Amino acid sequence: MIRHLLSGADLDAGTATLVLDTAAEMATVAGREVKKLPALRGRTVVNLFYEDSTRTRISFEAAAKRLSADVINFSAKGSSVAKGESLKDTALTLQAMGADAVVVRHPASGAPHRLAEWVDGSVVNAGDGTHEHPTQALLDAYTMRSRLGRLDGLHVAIVGDVLHSRVARSNVLLLSTLGAKVTLVGPPTLIPVDIAAALAPGTDVCYDLDAVLPDVDVVMMLRVQRERMGDSYFPSAREYARRYGLDGPRMRRLPGHALVMHPGPMNRGMEITPEVADSPRSTIVEQVANGVSVRMAVLYLLLGGNNR
Amino acid sequence: MIRHLLSGADLDAGTATLVLDTAAEMATVAGREVKKLPALRGRTVVNLFYEDSTRTRISFEAAAKRLSADVINFSAKGSSVAKGESLKDTALTLQAMGADAVVVRHPASGAPHRLAEWVDGSVVNAGDGTHEHPTQALLDAYTMRSRLGRLDGLHVAIVGDVLHSRVARSNVLLLSTLGAKVTLVGPPTLIPVDIAAALAPGTDVCYDLDAVLPDVDVVMMLRVQRERMGDSYFPSAREYARRYGLDGPRMRRLPGHALVMHPGPMNRGMEITPEVADSPRSTIVEQVANGVSVRMAVLYLLLGGNNR
Amino acid sequence: MIRHLLSGADLDAGTATLVLDTAAEMATVAGREVKKLPALRGRTVVNLFYEDSTRTRISFEAAAKRLSADVINFSAKGSSVAKGESLKDTALTLQAMGADAVVVRHPASGAPHRLAEWVDGSVVNAGDGTHEHPTQALLDAYTMRSRLGRLDGLHVAIVGDVLHSRVARSNVLLLSTLGAKVTLVGPPTLIPVDIAAALAPGTDVCYDLDAVLPDVDVVMMLRVQRERMGDSYFPSAREYARRYGLDGPRMRRLPGHALVMHPGPMNRGMEITPEVADSPRSTIVEQVANGVSVRMAVLYLLLGGNNR
Repeated sequence: MIRHLLSGADLDAGTATLVLDTAAEMATVAGREVKKLPALRGRTVVNLFYEDSTRTRISFEAAAKRLSADVINFSAKGSSVAKGESLKDTALTLQAMGADAVVVRHPASGAPHRLAEWVDGSVVNAGDGTHEHPTQALLDAYTMRSRLGRLDGLHVAIVGDVLHSRVARSNVLLLSTLGAKVTLVGPPTLIPVDIAAALAPGTDVCYDLDAVLPDVDVVMMLRVQRERMGDSYFPSAREYARRYGLDGPRMRRLPGHALVMHPGPMNRGMEITPEVADSPRSTIVEQVANGVSVRMAVLYLLLGGNNR
Repeated sequence: MIRHLLSGADLDAGTATLVLDTAAEMATVAGREVKKLPALRGRTVVNLFYEDSTRTRISFEAAAKRLSADVINFSAKGSSVAKGESLKDTALTLQAMGADAVVVRHPASGAPHRLAEWVDGSVVNAGDGTHEHPTQALLDAYTMRSRLGRLDGLHVAIVGDVLHSRVARSNVLLLSTLGAKVTLVGPPTLIPVDIAAALAPGTDVCYDLDAVLPDVDVVMMLRVQRERMGDSYFPSAREYARRYGLDGPRMRRLPGHALVMHPGPMNRGMEITPEVADSPRSTIVEQVANGVSVRMAVLYLLLGGNNR
Repeated sequence: MIRHLLSGADLDAGTATLVLDTAAEMATVAGREVKKLPALRGRTVVNLFYEDSTRTRISFEAAAKRLSADVINFSAKGSSVAKGESLKDTALTLQAMGADAVVVRHPASGAPHRLAEWVDGSVVNAGDGTHEHPTQALLDAYTMRSRLGRLDGLHVAIVGDVLHSRVARSNVLLLSTLGAKVTLVGPPTLIPVDIAAALAPGTDVCYDLDAVLPDVDVVMMLRVQRERMGDSYFPSAREYARRYGLDGPRMRRLPGHALVMHPGPMNRGMEITPEVADSPRSTIVEQVANGVSVRMAVLYLLLGGNNR
């Protein structure tokens, strides 16, 4: 097993499949009388968040606590970081305090990689800038596999602001490793021509959502991040929704078995309409539940349970 | 047992008495060597707070931890809520993450009721706008019963800004269910003529605190919330304190056995003087201690211990 | 054993040595398979922080959790404290909720002492204004003893803004109790002539860092707190660094065995250069690790383990 999880590219097909299989075992714990496993008792997981992301933080916190780990939340706002401490000194401090794993969310792409150079424990990238979010890709893959029975040969459309999306980046890397074919869909300003090939060979680009829909097994809608997507990228929110939003009529052009995914939180009415978000095709709530199982699996495998 | 606790009106006399009796058992745990009970081991309680309320949050957190539950604190400030996620999507997210109970504080009256429609777990209203705060009413009832031996037939004066007080509303509902008689006291602008009858038949209104004092078993002072009580409601703080504040001379007009209560935090010198707050009649600190026991009982009964 | 830890002066030589010896035992737990001890199971430790200090809060939180205590974090910002509740009412509230220990950080010197008058549980001063920070002094003493084998007879230079430093104050008190000799070093505006004698007899003052270095076993650099150190105290940051900063050439004037200490977080390039901070003489990361062991020992001894 790897020591850190920094990128969707860290996982070869065998390791990724081990994570997904382990997550499936973890999911069975949720049905038991007592949902806690003693596997990480005495281990400390630090959630080091330089950006607010309550959903991701809570998902990791729930995962770690279900494995009986101690969890310490470190919101970097207003902390010594604000007093100018470097990321390196923060890393050394957390390690000295006995952090077995550091789950890090950071606005700067690459920050988790630097953190991993400085600590003995494991680092999990919980989102770095516009770069990667590998546990999101794992929970997405888990959701596809559990709904459709396989990943190999699936055709997945990822729709929206690919340029700024760590979710898209990690998904392209992981899905191509696992044998799925990805088509990136969105306005040209948000999908530079060379991004697809640079990420993974065989990844396609299409600027016309309607042309892609009849051919996909999964359509994954990205959150529109208005703060990142200025006027230079797209004329207006209404125009964006009209061309790249998923509404009822578009959903009905999908094959009968196809799934609709979204990493949340949704802008209902923007990239997805309520009719679609709440339809039986939508896996959005399932993705959240699977997120806890996948993060349990990641922490369990990285920290080696009681047998490290 | 009920599934949610949203309002003082959710509890009939039998259920309310069961909660108070269970709280009494929980209180005995505090005297033991090890204060933890394993009853909710493996259960997850989420504190979903859309308003700051450290006291209430800590009380629920201590209660849940003493029952061995895992507690996740979710301050909705700066979270995805701030990014525009709807209450419904937040509810579905927390449920998908495995929240067995959601304790919610929200500025909008009725928000916990809507939340309860969307989740499979239990919802506990920890204060919604100017509407209700039922665990506060339960801890107040518990305190009266443990000090005075009964609730049936007690005469309770609730004094202050009744119009904006969720504490008053929940207390009127619960106390009338349990056979106590309530008189609402305060300036006419803060006690509309129809509020008493609308809440519970038999509830009286009086605008003269001095007239009521010799006749009550309990006087419950409400916190003056200056941010809610503008000039249109009352001329000045000094005038308010003079007419509706509880000071030493007023306290001495109470019957010998009568209690002085306050939900905290107090404005010492405003609605209550230090002499009164720190007198042996005052149950203010006891109320806080009883709050933990009552919330243990509520969580235990809603979640069904290990036998749900 | 004492009941509270408010000041470096609370500890006589025997008690301080007991804390250090206990911390050494606690440190061995870190090497075990399961790092948790059941000693404080069922006890509640509240971190009551009126100032942000993520490092100190996390250190206490990790220490308490390793002893199996329940930890409740109470950041006083935006809480009822902001609504004007007095420190006394907050103290009584926390006690009523069953806090066995309150770890308090407060901007006002002396606040923990007042808190200790009002609660039955133990109070640990985690930094009060410019006054004291006794667990920092204990972890510093622990670090010196573990590196140099003894404290009695050591010569320690404390360098920087002594006037505003709670770290300096607590260290002077504890080190003199344990037989070390302290020399305070810094600009005259930051070391009033009478402060040394007032703190502990035998404490020296020197305004020339270079003159002191060849003679010390330990040089402890204080963090420059620009927010406290206005123009009236010192002309400029550059001038400060030139005269009182520890750089490579200065470090090489120290005796071969001498240690460089810093309580963190560092202003690299200001009071200490990266070359010094990252050198083998530097104990800065060790101090952080020892902080957890020392705080485990303090909580364990104050709360009496399971046998109180």
